[in-house]
Amino acid sequence: MAAISKRRAFLRAGLQAGVAASAGKVLPASATETNNPKWMNGPGQPFAAYGQPAPQESHVIRRVGLNYRGIDDNGAAWCPLEQLQGSITPNGLHFVRNHVGTPAIQPEQHRLYIHGEVQRPLQFSVSNLLRYPQVSRQLFIECGGNSSAGWSEYPVQRTAGLTHGLVSASEWTGVPVRLLLEEAGVQASAQWVVATGNDSGAFDMSIPLEKIMDDCIIALYQNGERLRPENGYPMRLLVPGWKGVLSVKWLGGLQLSSQPAMSRNETAHYTEILPNGLSRQFTTTMAVKSLITSPSHGMTLAGPGVKEITGLAWSGHGKIARVEVSTDGGQSWADAELCEPPRPMALTRFRTSWKWDGEDHILQSRATDERGHVQPTRQALVAERGDKGFYHYNAIVSWEVNSFGLVSHVYV
Amino acid sequence: MAAISKRRAFLRAGLQAGVAASAGKVLPASATETNNPKWMNGPGQPFAAYGQPAPQESHVIRRVGLNYRGIDDNGAAWCPLEQLQGSITPNGLHFVRNHVGTPAIQPEQHRLYIHGEVQRPLQFSVSNLLRYPQVSRQLFIECGGNSSAGWSEYPVQRTAGLTHGLVSASEWTGVPVRLLLEEAGVQASAQWVVATGNDSGAFDMSIPLEKIMDDCIIALYQNGERLRPENGYPMRLLVPGWKGVLSVKWLGGLQLSSQPAMSRNETAHYTEILPNGLSRQFTTTMAVKSLITSPSHGMTLAGPGVKEITGLAWSGHGKIARVEVSTDGGQSWADAELCEPPRPMALTRFRTSWKWDGEDHILQSRATDERGHVQPTRQALVAERGDKGFYHYNAIVSWEVNSFGLVSHVYV
Repeated sequence: MAAISKRRAFLRAGLQAGVAASAGKVLPASATETNNPKWMNGPGQPFAAYGQPAPQESHVIRRVGLNYRGIDDNGAAWCPLEQLQGSITPNGLHFVRNHVGTPAIQPEQHRLYIHGEVQRPLQFSVSNLLRYPQVSRQLFIECGGNSSAGWSEYPVQRTAGLTHGLVSASEWTGVPVRLLLEEAGVQASAQWVVATGNDSGAFDMSIPLEKIMDDCIIALYQNGERLRPENGYPMRLLVPGWKGVLSVKWLGGLQLSSQPAMSRNETAHYTEILPNGLSRQFTTTMAVKSLITSPSHGMTLAGPGVKEITGLAWSGHGKIARVEVSTDGGQSWADAELCEPPRPMALTRFRTSWKWDGEDHILQSRATDERGHVQPTRQALVAERGDKGFYHYNAIVSWEVNSFGLVSHVYV
Repeated sequence: MAAISKRRAFLRAGLQAGVAASAGKVLPASATETNNPKWMNGPGQPFAAYGQPAPQESHVIRRVGLNYRGIDDNGAAWCPLEQLQGSITPNGLHFVRNHVGTPAIQPEQHRLYIHGEVQRPLQFSVSNLLRYPQVSRQLFIECGGNSSAGWSEYPVQRTAGLTHGLVSASEWTGVPVRLLLEEAGVQASAQWVVATGNDSGAFDMSIPLEKIMDDCIIALYQNGERLRPENGYPMRLLVPGWKGVLSVKWLGGLQLSSQPAMSRNETAHYTEILPNGLSRQFTTTMAVKSLITSPSHGMTLAGPGVKEITGLAWSGHGKIARVEVSTDGGQSWADAELCEPPRPMALTRFRTSWKWDGEDHILQSRATDERGHVQPTRQALVAERGDKGFYHYNAIVSWEVNSFGLVSHVYV
């Protein structure tokens, strides 16, 4: 059976853990040995105005999957979750889901129109918006179709990032939509806001007015700098905790309406048939979820000994309250440590240590949010939602470590 | 006199504020007007494996200042604070202070040696370290010489970034140094750790063992991805809250010693003469500090009305507890709003709104940390430290807004 030690116990046993980790790896250094590699023999590179990753890290990239062969602007670029650490996604690696590519917007020509059932239709340039009060929040965005491979009959063998990498988190800064709607004057009849993006698909989605007024923002900055083009430059809607497709990129219009638009992406797509024959439509909140990113599919454990198990947890309902880890396929659980105080609707990094005995084990994580939602087993999720699912997959993920240290994806 | 409204009051007056902000700027849109720019006429750009900023944002860069004309590897690249938002610095814009350039390290050949007064000298490769337990923390790094222009007799007229931009903040992930030292076995005689970087200067600095064991980490990741070369790839020491020069980049050695190294950068540099003729040496904690980043030098207010005042606050002693803003040169103060719960030794974004009457005003911010340290006036700082200072300048910064809306740097 697996022994999950709590971090504190691990740290108390630091020496022992180190020895375990060092077996055949950390070499004793002679007392006089020093480090004098060739790159210390002359001056280094000069300063760069805008920095880039080390060339040796060029394998840490988003992996692109196209929805239709030969059509290179409809698909997704998956965030390599298993290669990253912490709870912030670097801007260059934030996942992208595009339907018709990234438009080359000239920001000074871009306008946001607020129209429909308002007292005073208004238009805003980027520079107008930059003069409004802003808020900054660390928030995840997760595509409603993230982890859709989980609905497959057999467990798909792909990396964590290529299976679950349509989620990322940034510190977003922007203007509360409420301020702009109050200026325009919302008519009493309005119940929905139809947000339109300025890509060539004129992508549009309907969001309940109540949510918009509660906490939605028009994001202008991502991790301190202006949005990246593929993430909505010069402005995007940010709908905290709800499915990512609602956070409309390249935002050009907010139409107040008594009805939703019934657009393509809220009728033909982003809906799904339930076991009772009815369809789920206008789904909103991304459910509580977690994922072990290391060890995960494609990795190999070098040999028995103390290992760190780490991953990410999040919930569209608020803060993560607890993450438990199992190394025996869900028979027993132990709390993982949460890194820094969790923030609502942000990614939370969890960690625990595990002494691998070299035998077969199934690793799982299970998140609970502050409202008491618990991440379901795959069996429970399929029982509720049927086998025609595509969206909102949030079941517990199982990684099997075999006696060779190979990690693969399994259903239990 | 200036009227500082609290954010809540501003939000209550949202409509009025909007009208104020819209004067001559936000145009009414006709009810049927829609947005159909040329970039909506065809498919957009395909996916990129690693994203880059929009070409139109190419002016948002670090500005390089060399310490000696013609020597392009000794100097600093300043973070453009006034162009950024939130409290995370994007990796491409993190400030850099290099003494002999950025070494082109081959990570697989790099070693960290732990030696000196230890039971077992050890060496670690990058892949060794990646197998240890890690921690993730949002932390600022500030160069001890940041804001040194504040010591000038007359107020230097430069942007916020070019004056105070040797501070940045990231979510750093790495291995607690304590784990490695426990494995090596620290001898009772050891009181200092001499950290050496593998640039061609073999940059070395001495840190008290107590601090190292308390909270220092060997950082491997910055905002989720591996360190950037100019920020220490493949590993750097991270000394939370203390002067940045101690967070030795390209870390190659940790030598345990009963004495500090008395190296060049803790004797000839990073020391300063006090009014009583003695020198400050081995300075450590970056004091409580804040700065209004907008409005700031070089900006022009478009006309009277409601403005957002925003900036950054930080303290090496812990969390920011309070930031006050004055618009009358320090005669009266009002609390600003702090964005999200402050974290210890991280940057905290603050905001407040201000109704500018079109007259001359002097804007200031004053931070207080959780231990009760209050950011001093320039007068008080100079009285304490004399006029030979260069390092650890943390006085209140004053920006004067004149009746034309021009913002300049003043002393009061």
